[in-house]
Amino acid sequence: MKKSVGEIAELVGGVVVGDPDVCITGLNGIEQAQPGELTFLNNPRYAHHLETTGASAILAPPDLDVLGKTLIHVKNPYAAFVSVLHSWAEPLKVTLPEGIHATAVIGSGVTLGEHVAIGPHVFVGADSRIGGGVTLHHGVSIGPGCTIGDDSVLYPNVVVRERVSIGARCVLHAGAVIGSDGFGFAPFSGSWFKIQQIGTVVIGDDVEIGSNSAVDRATFGRTVVGRGTKIDNLVQVGHNVQIGEHCVVSGMSGIAGSTVIGDHVTIAAQVGIADHLEIGEGVTLGARSGVAQSVKPGKVMSGYPLMEHQDDLRVLAALRRLPDMPRRIRDLERRIQALEENLHGTAEDDKR
Amino acid sequence: MKKSVGEIAELVGGVVVGDPDVCITGLNGIEQAQPGELTFLNNPRYAHHLETTGASAILAPPDLDVLGKTLIHVKNPYAAFVSVLHSWAEPLKVTLPEGIHATAVIGSGVTLGEHVAIGPHVFVGADSRIGGGVTLHHGVSIGPGCTIGDDSVLYPNVVVRERVSIGARCVLHAGAVIGSDGFGFAPFSGSWFKIQQIGTVVIGDDVEIGSNSAVDRATFGRTVVGRGTKIDNLVQVGHNVQIGEHCVVSGMSGIAGSTVIGDHVTIAAQVGIADHLEIGEGVTLGARSGVAQSVKPGKVMSGYPLMEHQDDLRVLAALRRLPDMPRRIRDLERRIQALEENLHGTAEDDKR
Amino acid sequence: MKKSVGEIAELVGGVVVGDPDVCITGLNGIEQAQPGELTFLNNPRYAHHLETTGASAILAPPDLDVLGKTLIHVKNPYAAFVSVLHSWAEPLKVTLPEGIHATAVIGSGVTLGEHVAIGPHVFVGADSRIGGGVTLHHGVSIGPGCTIGDDSVLYPNVVVRERVSIGARCVLHAGAVIGSDGFGFAPFSGSWFKIQQIGTVVIGDDVEIGSNSAVDRATFGRTVVGRGTKIDNLVQVGHNVQIGEHCVVSGMSGIAGSTVIGDHVTIAAQVGIADHLEIGEGVTLGARSGVAQSVKPGKVMSGYPLMEHQDDLRVLAALRRLPDMPRRIRDLERRIQALEENLHGTAEDDKR
Repeated sequence: MKKSVGEIAELVGGVVVGDPDVCITGLNGIEQAQPGELTFLNNPRYAHHLETTGASAILAPPDLDVLGKTLIHVKNPYAAFVSVLHSWAEPLKVTLPEGIHATAVIGSGVTLGEHVAIGPHVFVGADSRIGGGVTLHHGVSIGPGCTIGDDSVLYPNVVVRERVSIGARCVLHAGAVIGSDGFGFAPFSGSWFKIQQIGTVVIGDDVEIGSNSAVDRATFGRTVVGRGTKIDNLVQVGHNVQIGEHCVVSGMSGIAGSTVIGDHVTIAAQVGIADHLEIGEGVTLGARSGVAQSVKPGKVMSGYPLMEHQDDLRVLAALRRLPDMPRRIRDLERRIQALEENLHGTAEDDKR
Repeated sequence: MKKSVGEIAELVGGVVVGDPDVCITGLNGIEQAQPGELTFLNNPRYAHHLETTGASAILAPPDLDVLGKTLIHVKNPYAAFVSVLHSWAEPLKVTLPEGIHATAVIGSGVTLGEHVAIGPHVFVGADSRIGGGVTLHHGVSIGPGCTIGDDSVLYPNVVVRERVSIGARCVLHAGAVIGSDGFGFAPFSGSWFKIQQIGTVVIGDDVEIGSNSAVDRATFGRTVVGRGTKIDNLVQVGHNVQIGEHCVVSGMSGIAGSTVIGDHVTIAAQVGIADHLEIGEGVTLGARSGVAQSVKPGKVMSGYPLMEHQDDLRVLAALRRLPDMPRRIRDLERRIQALEENLHGTAEDDKR
Repeated sequence: MKKSVGEIAELVGGVVVGDPDVCITGLNGIEQAQPGELTFLNNPRYAHHLETTGASAILAPPDLDVLGKTLIHVKNPYAAFVSVLHSWAEPLKVTLPEGIHATAVIGSGVTLGEHVAIGPHVFVGADSRIGGGVTLHHGVSIGPGCTIGDDSVLYPNVVVRERVSIGARCVLHAGAVIGSDGFGFAPFSGSWFKIQQIGTVVIGDDVEIGSNSAVDRATFGRTVVGRGTKIDNLVQVGHNVQIGEHCVVSGMSGIAGSTVIGDHVTIAAQVGIADHLEIGEGVTLGARSGVAQSVKPGKVMSGYPLMEHQDDLRVLAALRRLPDMPRRIRDLERRIQALEENLHGTAEDDKR
C-alpha cells in the first residue's frame, strides 16, 4: 500500500509542513521507522527522537517543527496515527475460509449461523449454537450447550466448557479457558471435599480475553464479564466474579471468587483482588495493587496495603529512606535519655 | 428439580422456622437469590442481607431469626448448603460417551481400562496406560510411557508429557501442562547451556490441577504432588518440587525448584516460594507472601519479607503511617539538637 | 546404563577416594539417591546429607572427606554432575517419527525441510516454511506465513499465530502462545476501541519459551526475543518488547509494552516491568521486583520500589522493625515536648 503525505494529512485533518508528495509505504514507531515510513510523536518527552528518526514523515503536535523533516501537524498525533493504521491495516485480517473443515467434529443438535468459519480439529459439543460470521480457529474446543455470539473470533486451542455463553463480536485469544471449575473445596476430616461447580459463565458482547487467561464458572449462578470489557493475557477471573462493562484488566491480574467490579474500572498489571469485595464504578487500581478491601466509586488506588494512589507514591518514596530509620530512632532515644537524665540531674541540683 | 423446605430440613438435619411446605426450585447466593430459591447465611457479618434477599428460604445458624422469612436452623449452614447443592447437582456431570472417538490417535502398546471415554482429536503416546473410567476430553495430549489412574478426568487441551504418572480420580483442568522441562540452564561462556531434564512428575490420587497451570518435570528424579492436594489456575510448580498430601495452592502462586512442602499446607493466591526451601506440615501462607526462607510446621505466615501473620498485619498497618515518619524524625532531630545546644549553653552558663 | 566410579572420574577429570570399581546405574539428588546411584555435593551447607545419603558415590569438592563413602573429588561437582548427566541422558530424547502424521493438516504453499516430524492433529497455515529437522508435536498450531527455523521443537498445543518467525534450535513448551494480539485499546466515548495489531514477533535462534507463556505481536513492527534467551513458564512478553540475547526470564514475570531489554539480563521470578523502559545490558533483577524506571547496564536491582539490591535487603530487614516505629516516634515526641516545656520553664524561671 502507498499513500502520499498529502493524502494522509487529508485523512487525519492535518496540515503538511514540507513536501506533500512524499510517498509513504509503511508505518512504524519513531525509533524503528525507516525511509518511506510514517511515524508519530505524541509525547514531547521523546522529541529528541525527531532528529534521529529515519521516518520520511511524522505526525506531530502543531507547536513542533524540525528543520528538514516533513511533518503533518495534527492535534492528537496518536489518534491520527491509529486512524492511519486502521486505513492501512484493513486487508491484514487473518481469515479462515468460510465453511467447516473436514477434520472438525460437530456434535448433534448444533446450530450454525451463516458464514461461519470452523478450522481443522475444532470440536463443538452437542446442542451448542454458533452465531453467524463466527470464526473458530484450529483446535478450539466448545463444550455442549454453549452459545457463541455473531462475529466472535476464537483463536487456536481456546477452550469453552459446557453451557457457557459468549457474546457477539468477542475475541478470545489462543489458549484462553472459559468455564473451568471454580476453586471450591470444603475441608472434611483432613482432606478436601470438592464442591461441584454447577454454575456457568456469561461473557457480554465486544469482550476480548487474552492468551492463556482463565475465567472460572460459578459454583452456582453465573460468573459475568460485562459488555465491552477487555482482559489481557494470563489473567484469572474466579468463580462467581462479576465484572462490569467497558473495564480493562491488564496482564497477570487475578480476581478472587464472588468479587463484584463496576463499569469502567481499570485494573493495571499484576493486581490481586481478594474475594467477596466490591470495586465501585470508574475505579482505577495501579499495577501490583493488593486489594483486600472494597473500593468506593471513582477512586484511584494502588499499593499493598491498598491506599489512595497519591499516598502510595509517598509510601514508595518513604520506603527508600526506611533502612536508616531504626538507627535514627535509636540515636534519638539515646540522646533524649541523656537529656532527660541531664535535666533531671539539673533539676535535682536545683532542688539542692 | 423441586424440594420442599421440610424435605431439605430433613436432608440436613435442620429445624424449620416458618412454612415447611414452601417449594424450592433452585439454589443461589444470598445477594443473587430470587423467589423460589434457597440460600444460606454463614457469616454474621452478612446478616444485613437477610432482610433484602429474595430467597424463599435461608439456611442459618440457630441463633438467627428474621421476621417474615422462612429459615432452616442448622449448626453449619455452609456445610448444609453444600450437601443440598450436591443432592441437587448430581445429574449435571458432563460426560463424554464411552469409547474412543474416531479421530483420536492411540499409540502402539497403549493399555486402556474399561469404560474409558476418549474424545475427538485426543492423542495417547505409545505404551501409556489409561485406567478404567478415565475421561480424556477433546484435544488432550498424553505423551508416551504415561500412566493415568482410574476415573481421572482430563479436560480439553491438557498436555501430559512423556513418562508422567497421574493418580486415580484426578481432575486436570483445561490447558494444564504436566511434565514440561524444568527451567535448568548452566552458564557457559556467555550463553546458557540446557541441562537435560530427564526426570518425571508423579501426581497422587485425588489431585486437582487448575486451568493453564504448569508442573515441570524433575531434572532427575521426580516432581511430586501428593494425594488429595488441590491446585488452582495459573500456578507454577518448578522442577523437583515435592508437595505433600491434602494441600491447597491458590491461583497464580509459584513454587520454585526443589522446594519441599509438607502435608496439609495452605498457600493463598499470588504467593511466590523460592527454591530449595522446606515448608513444614500444616503451614498457612497468606496471599501475596514472598517466601525466601524455610517455615516450621504449623506456622501461619504472610508478607514480604515473610513473617508471622500477626506481625505482617502490623507492618501493613504501619506502612500507611510511613510517609510522615521521615518528616517526624527530622523534626525530632532538629528539636533535640536545639535542646542539646540550649542545655549545653545552660551548662556553659552555669560554669560561668 | 552402567558405569564404574573409575570411568566416571575419568570422564570428569576427578580423583576417586575409595573403590573405583563401584558400579553406578543411575543419577539422583543427594536426598533421594539410592544404592547404585551417583550424586553430588556442591554447597557445603548440605554437607550433613553426606552421612545419610544412600548414594553409592558422591561428586564432591577436594576438601571434603567422609568415612566409608566413595567420593570423586572434583573442583566443580555440579558441573561434573551435569556432564555425567548428559553422557547418561542421550538416549532419552522424546522423538516423533519422521514424516507427517495422517491427521495433520498442512496448508497450501507450505515448505517443509528434510527430516521434519509432524505429529497428530497439527495444523500448519498456508505459505509457512518449516525448517529441516523440526518437530511439531500433537496439536501444534502454526498460522499462515510463519517461519520455523531448523531443528526447533514445538511441544503439544503450542500456538504460533500468523507471520511469526521462530529461529533455529528453539524449544517452545506446551501451551505457549507466540504472536497473540498486543493489548492495545484506545478510549473512545466511554468504550474501548481496538487498535489493530498488525506487527509480528521474531524469535532468535536457540531460544526456549516455557509452558503457557504468551509473547504478544507488535502493534506495528516487531516484538523481539534475542538469540539464546531462555524464558520460563507463565511469562508474559508485551507487544513491541525487545529482549536481548542470552537473557533469562524466570517464571511468572511480565514485561509490558515497548520495553527494551539488553543482552545478558537476568530476570528472576514474579518480576513486573512497566512499559517503555530500558533495562541495560547485564542487569540482574531480583525476584518479585516491580520495575517502574529504566535501569543502567550492569546493575543488580530488586524490590518495589526498585533499588540497588543491597539497599533492598536493608529495606526488607527494616520492614520487620516498622510496626514499633510509630509508637517509638510518638514516645519521642512526647518526651521531647516535655523536655522543651521543662527547659522553657527553666528558662522562664531563669528570667524571673
